[in-house]
Amino acid sequence: MVQLFDDERLDYLLAEETMQIIQSPSAFSFSLDAVLLAHFAYVPIKKGTILDLCTGNGVIPLLLSRRTNANISGVEIQKRLFDMAARNVKLNELEKQINMIHGDLKEMQEILKQSSFDVVTCNPPYFRTPGKMEHNKNEYLTIARHEVFCSLEDVVQASKLYVRPGGKVAMVHRPGRLVDIISLFRKYKLEPKRMQLVYPKMGRDANMLLIEGIRDGKADLTILPPLYIYNHDNTYTKEAEDIIYGR
Amino acid sequence: MVQLFDDERLDYLLAEETMQIIQSPSAFSFSLDAVLLAHFAYVPIKKGTILDLCTGNGVIPLLLSRRTNANISGVEIQKRLFDMAARNVKLNELEKQINMIHGDLKEMQEILKQSSFDVVTCNPPYFRTPGKMEHNKNEYLTIARHEVFCSLEDVVQASKLYVRPGGKVAMVHRPGRLVDIISLFRKYKLEPKRMQLVYPKMGRDANMLLIEGIRDGKADLTILPPLYIYNHDNTYTKEAEDIIYGR
Repeated sequence: MVQLFDDERLDYLLAEETMQIIQSPSAFSFSLDAVLLAHFAYVPIKKGTILDLCTGNGVIPLLLSRRTNANISGVEIQKRLFDMAARNVKLNELEKQINMIHGDLKEMQEILKQSSFDVVTCNPPYFRTPGKMEHNKNEYLTIARHEVFCSLEDVVQASKLYVRPGGKVAMVHRPGRLVDIISLFRKYKLEPKRMQLVYPKMGRDANMLLIEGIRDGKADLTILPPLYIYNHDNTYTKEAEDIIYGR
Repeated sequence: MVQLFDDERLDYLLAEETMQIIQSPSAFSFSLDAVLLAHFAYVPIKKGTILDLCTGNGVIPLLLSRRTNANISGVEIQKRLFDMAARNVKLNELEKQINMIHGDLKEMQEILKQSSFDVVTCNPPYFRTPGKMEHNKNEYLTIARHEVFCSLEDVVQASKLYVRPGGKVAMVHRPGRLVDIISLFRKYKLEPKRMQLVYPKMGRDANMLLIEGIRDGKADLTILPPLYIYNHDNTYTKEAEDIIYGR
């Protein structure tokens, strides 16, 4: 029914779930980060438009489609990942709701309407541009994880360009970059309004952050209760389990 | 032994503690915020210099003196509070370690040596300049709580001016101002390195934040485990109790 190439495999999108997703250990497999972002982001329920930047194999649009009837566009620069994303849309019969675009988020002006999207989401590459050594190991993973083709500023700038005034931009990233994120959100008039910190378990430093800004919003940040992933016995917390199991 | 004016009273600085502090319900009483900042801030143990801006009745220098032998200077703009602070130093026989200065932190260039302090602490006024109505109610409390005489930017700018390169600036504030704080810290080259969020209890939004920047530091923020103040039955958590009881 769906073609799988190389080391690609079919996984369930969420535990206890019927939706499936094509993954590839050597090219792109989604992580908890994407699941948490898709859960954290505000979405309009009945109609509207959502743009997912750095969409990879399309995991965030697929997850969001469970929560909204809005039209979702995903942009991915890597041809092989875009191809997986397009097949994932087909596999789940979501062609009417999700539109995958192959291209560079810095050069979408001809394709996407500016200041038009209700929500922009992004799980960007986390790491600053790598050295040549790392580059040579695995180009797909390097591009997905490092700021090779787009810097954090490129992502924030594109988010600003396509979100409507009053629309929301939601991102997942590492706490080490919070200062950069907040500075860039302010620079591009995406006022941070809601933030949640994710801790692997109680007593540990945060290892992930979820942040949402509103274009041209008034300054006033709410910091939500922390989200813990694991209990001390390494089982999932109730809260994490509910998100991961899609309850 | 010590003179008390108007509605001033003597309180213990911390529970199970011998140090005392002059407070006044109508002029200045310290809050949990000051106690948490004095606990959060890095201090050199044996020697060095610390500057506390917006020192009020001197609560933070008094608390810090329990953890360090460094020389501590406090600056307070309100004559009546400065007077309480000076008496508090005397009351606790800390004249050799703590020096209270009456003045405006924006005009300390003649009195304080620039780029010289190892640590600057500040529990600044939290609220933007109030309307005339609020002003008239209680001038002391209005000035201590609102940005009447100094804005957040004034505080950050003064911190930058007096901390040495590589020195630390620690502040307590409300989460609603995190974006402003981070933007101003960056603007004045105080790179945020350590942050802790304080939650009244589990499941609630954060209501306080502790943040420490390093002058000319390299970008990389660590977000510490959250601090909860109350258990669900409204008793103090073990962690909060240890701080409040000065253990």
